[in-house]
Amino acid sequence: MAKNTGVSLAVIRRLPRYYRFLEDLRKEGIEYISSRKFAELIGVTASQVRQDLNCFGGFGQQGRGYDVANLCKEIETILGIRRQTPAVLVGAGNLGAAIANHMDFSQRGFSLLGIFDTDARKIGQTIGKQTILDMQTLGEFCQKHHPQMAILCIPQEGAEKIVPSLIEWGIEGFWNFSHFNLAVSYENVIVENVHLGDSLLTLSYLIQERDQQKT
Amino acid sequence: MAKNTGVSLAVIRRLPRYYRFLEDLRKEGIEYISSRKFAELIGVTASQVRQDLNCFGGFGQQGRGYDVANLCKEIETILGIRRQTPAVLVGAGNLGAAIANHMDFSQRGFSLLGIFDTDARKIGQTIGKQTILDMQTLGEFCQKHHPQMAILCIPQEGAEKIVPSLIEWGIEGFWNFSHFNLAVSYENVIVENVHLGDSLLTLSYLIQERDQQKT
Repeated sequence: MAKNTGVSLAVIRRLPRYYRFLEDLRKEGIEYISSRKFAELIGVTASQVRQDLNCFGGFGQQGRGYDVANLCKEIETILGIRRQTPAVLVGAGNLGAAIANHMDFSQRGFSLLGIFDTDARKIGQTIGKQTILDMQTLGEFCQKHHPQMAILCIPQEGAEKIVPSLIEWGIEGFWNFSHFNLAVSYENVIVENVHLGDSLLTLSYLIQERDQQKT
Repeated sequence: MAKNTGVSLAVIRRLPRYYRFLEDLRKEGIEYISSRKFAELIGVTASQVRQDLNCFGGFGQQGRGYDVANLCKEIETILGIRRQTPAVLVGAGNLGAAIANHMDFSQRGFSLLGIFDTDARKIGQTIGKQTILDMQTLGEFCQKHHPQMAILCIPQEGAEKIVPSLIEWGIEGFWNFSHFNLAVSYENVIVENVHLGDSLLTLSYLIQERDQQKT
């Protein structure tokens, strides 16, 4: 049984990565892996792997290493993957459509219930198996289906306007692709920001640094 | 003048966030901001802001705070934004097309020179102002235009196949949306991974944790 109270967010953030590699190992039919080999595979130290997994009660067996399938299952429980938290996607533009098409929500803990947009040309069109719904019906939809999470694929101004309503309608967590700094305005909601531009700027820095080292 | 040798990556990773907020302040016409107010705005501590910016030589003026426009310019230099590092995008599927459409590369340090795909139905189509080019011509393109960075919007298997060629063709940095664990196989390349699924799993954990606290 996983004990996961008081685990630091830094550890939690490494678990999805462990999970990705473990899933691959499981698919390849590998039953056991040592912490040393596993650490090598993902590019961290063995002591880091052992420390992180110890936070949840270990799972390693002396001499055999980690039981891959079992560890997968334990991490699934820790991360809440099988909960299938109900979610809605707000904004069916380029990014929203790509997210809806590209992400395997059910493998990542969520069930995508609906996609919403304000654009009359988009409403009624389909993305995958989902029909894009009118944003005006989102309040009603939330009352009926009780989504807990909203994916914000809209610009900052749109996000600022819709977030108070979403919270009122029962949304507790946001996967935020907008630049609206939700966490500062609403202390009690759970926010996971995705700032692709920040990642790109970091890469810009690293390439420049490398070039400077060459000269 | 910015001194940025030996600055930890943790600090570097916070700079893009500072930059986003500073850009907004500049657009709003705000000339100076205290470290306290700036920290409040972005949701970190004032001492963190001061410490981070001190790594690059400070920029704060006693009694007036930070000169917003000047600090923007300094961070632009530190992050290499004005370098406009030449880049190519590999894979014009849903995700690749969204990235090409959605990202303002020039504001984030890069110049997107070309978009490549293997799918004959996609080649010749346009995304924004760019025509999708045949992946078979990518080697030639690299020899002619010398891109330094490649954006990988292809599945893991495709990435594994194309990366050795890309490195041979002079690519030094990767913005990696594939699940191919580049950094482990190629120690000397610069990789910035974007694992959207990991972010989603973290959110799943946080929502589950909140629910457990309620009961």
